[in-house]
Amino acid sequence: MSNKEALFQKIDNKKLTVGVIGLGYVGLPLAVCFAVKQVKVLGFDTSSERVEKINSGSNYISDVSDDQLADLVKQQKISATTDFTNMRECNALFICVPTPLDRFKKPDMSYIENVCRQVGANLQPGTFISLESTTYPTTTEDFVQPIIEEESGLKEGKDFWLAYSPERVDPGNKQFSTQNTPKVLGAISEDGLEIGKAIYSIAVDEIHTVSSPRIAEMVKILENTYRLVNISLINELALLAGKMDINIWEVIDAAATKPFGFQAFYPGPGVGGHCIPLDPFYLEHIAKKFNFDLSMIHTAGHIDLLMAHRMTVKITSALNRQKKAINASKILFLGVAYKPDINDERESPALKIMEEVENKGGEVSYHDPFIPTVQIATGSRFNSVELSESVLKAADCVVITTNHSGFDAGFIEKHSRLIVDLRNVIAEASDKVYKL
Amino acid sequence: MSNKEALFQKIDNKKLTVGVIGLGYVGLPLAVCFAVKQVKVLGFDTSSERVEKINSGSNYISDVSDDQLADLVKQQKISATTDFTNMRECNALFICVPTPLDRFKKPDMSYIENVCRQVGANLQPGTFISLESTTYPTTTEDFVQPIIEEESGLKEGKDFWLAYSPERVDPGNKQFSTQNTPKVLGAISEDGLEIGKAIYSIAVDEIHTVSSPRIAEMVKILENTYRLVNISLINELALLAGKMDINIWEVIDAAATKPFGFQAFYPGPGVGGHCIPLDPFYLEHIAKKFNFDLSMIHTAGHIDLLMAHRMTVKITSALNRQKKAINASKILFLGVAYKPDINDERESPALKIMEEVENKGGEVSYHDPFIPTVQIATGSRFNSVELSESVLKAADCVVITTNHSGFDAGFIEKHSRLIVDLRNVIAEASDKVYKL
Repeated sequence: MSNKEALFQKIDNKKLTVGVIGLGYVGLPLAVCFAVKQVKVLGFDTSSERVEKINSGSNYISDVSDDQLADLVKQQKISATTDFTNMRECNALFICVPTPLDRFKKPDMSYIENVCRQVGANLQPGTFISLESTTYPTTTEDFVQPIIEEESGLKEGKDFWLAYSPERVDPGNKQFSTQNTPKVLGAISEDGLEIGKAIYSIAVDEIHTVSSPRIAEMVKILENTYRLVNISLINELALLAGKMDINIWEVIDAAATKPFGFQAFYPGPGVGGHCIPLDPFYLEHIAKKFNFDLSMIHTAGHIDLLMAHRMTVKITSALNRQKKAINASKILFLGVAYKPDINDERESPALKIMEEVENKGGEVSYHDPFIPTVQIATGSRFNSVELSESVLKAADCVVITTNHSGFDAGFIEKHSRLIVDLRNVIAEASDKVYKL
Repeated sequence: MSNKEALFQKIDNKKLTVGVIGLGYVGLPLAVCFAVKQVKVLGFDTSSERVEKINSGSNYISDVSDDQLADLVKQQKISATTDFTNMRECNALFICVPTPLDRFKKPDMSYIENVCRQVGANLQPGTFISLESTTYPTTTEDFVQPIIEEESGLKEGKDFWLAYSPERVDPGNKQFSTQNTPKVLGAISEDGLEIGKAIYSIAVDEIHTVSSPRIAEMVKILENTYRLVNISLINELALLAGKMDINIWEVIDAAATKPFGFQAFYPGPGVGGHCIPLDPFYLEHIAKKFNFDLSMIHTAGHIDLLMAHRMTVKITSALNRQKKAINASKILFLGVAYKPDINDERESPALKIMEEVENKGGEVSYHDPFIPTVQIATGSRFNSVELSESVLKAADCVVITTNHSGFDAGFIEKHSRLIVDLRNVIAEASDKVYKL
């Protein structure tokens, strides 16, 4: 029996063991999707804290159900380990590690590289491997494949199969999860595509295959470049609209009545999260190799880079009308999550504004019902304060940085002395309410 | 009876006469929408050719039905004139004149200014006036109102009412026409908004009112800025994708499987038509007055400005592989309309590429089933040639510039020696098929 036939037999009998490497907001939901279909999942992570949590049935990802995870661990469908040699038990490996940018906004490929070395060192013939981490086009073919082949001495397309399938996780999305979001899949070899589609189809409702990994890599970057560009566009227009006495939210709502050719984006203090602020710059990075300048991404990134500063200027202007400076003023931020109703503050613009306000001598505090404590780049750590009448009254300026659905606009407006609303939470601007 | 009460009585009895100034692709469909509701429409245009055509019941706008127009003229519901003093008979005036950019891409406000002077000179108390021409925010309040008040000696909000309602005509759209596309309306006074809504409601299904004309002006520009920016983004990504051996259309189709947060735009040789290449630059113009630089529009415009040249470079490269130069080669363009299945070549990128190819010594010809003859900026005039086997075979290079739905990809591919496909009409690239 060929490697391929042997693997298909395991797929058909659901006798395969799946390894998920990286148990974060991408890997854990994927692990659950396989496990609920009665496939045995082995989770790998370098964090022994995460591994222990999972093995004790304790969830830490908001898109995963606590009960479901506990149940799957109890049924022994999911277990986790820090020991990467256990990859040898797996028939399929899904790489779901982060791909951050370094401090100079260049791709930090070290996570992928380290994992690929481990995968190569432990690779058994007949294994399917899929990279899910967002990265620049050509990564799978030109970066991942050579490392794995070198470390394993095995050959793609014969001894193992390599594919790329971008994660499309939208944290907090109640309608679309890993299971019901169509999955794009591109593989190096035809066999790899056939095998990958069969394996992913166990866990995910719909698989959209494409002709190569680089197409699949580009798909994810296009999706998030579209978002970065449109958010930066509307942010820039919002800043102009503010000068022209035009309520940009009223404009957007009216434009959204156009029944064709328009998608509404809303302004705010800048993009946040693990995808939109990062993914486009992966493409900008590889474009250089092709002597190509991506001016739209560059311009959008430039607008976004300045948003926190521009928001600080808005706060300064609002305080100035009351003859106050930021220095020694009490500034209360409402919401540090990068979008509403989630507990994720990665790359959140609120943190950058807090940093700048603190650097200017402001007394910073914040309230966020989803995030009890945060640390900003200066090292300062804050604990969420209660959102009470007295807390609002004590602040020289209340800055609304996230539009959590639980925020009571009337209550906030009533008890605050000065509000800078960056999220259209308060309907009308007034003497004490400044809008973005 | 007040002016307002008198006008409302006419509205309620449908006894009002409506004047439409500018009988182009915006004005004539609007005139028809009123006339079919049995409102008497007087059309104004400086072109005696257009006026004569209408009065003889002869249609020249593809979004208007020939039979319907002939019928309405016969019923004496629509008539046209070049005599602007006849505005005195009108209870409502709709200004639908063009607002082009001049050769330096600055707004040419002369059409609006001339019409406003005529409107002012002939204005009767109790008239409602709406500007539909796309223009920069603040035009209605700061440019139109002063001219009309000065010329007429009448006062807005008392003697007459002034509003702005952007046209949203999408030529060739089979689903959405003037009548069933929601209409955004902003007026200077509250009475003006109430009156305007009542009058427009006769002709248009849904009216979305906003708080000021400048909001309504900004709405139209946001809609088309969104399109310019996204088309330029995908064009830039397409140029990179070409270098990276990535089929951008396959990428877009895969990205479009994402069920949230994405809208697909497709690449091409550049934007065309009367809106997208112009409207954003109205905003860029007024932004300067507020010391504001719109970097996204600027960058998108920059990409678009270079597209025709880049497409000429693609043609050069394709010919070069066959050891030919553009100079003295026969280059056949398929499609000069700016989008599929319409007879409009305004601002069409095809014309710009034809111009550059001709300047380089290419022997230019074209075929377009919708456009029998075109003139390019150099003054050269061309007549559409037949799309036959021998015509295709005779061309050194066939350039597909518009994806008219009638184009037979198989026929074109079979009989052409070399194809540069800028619209993804031919599915697969090959030795003789170069794609954008």
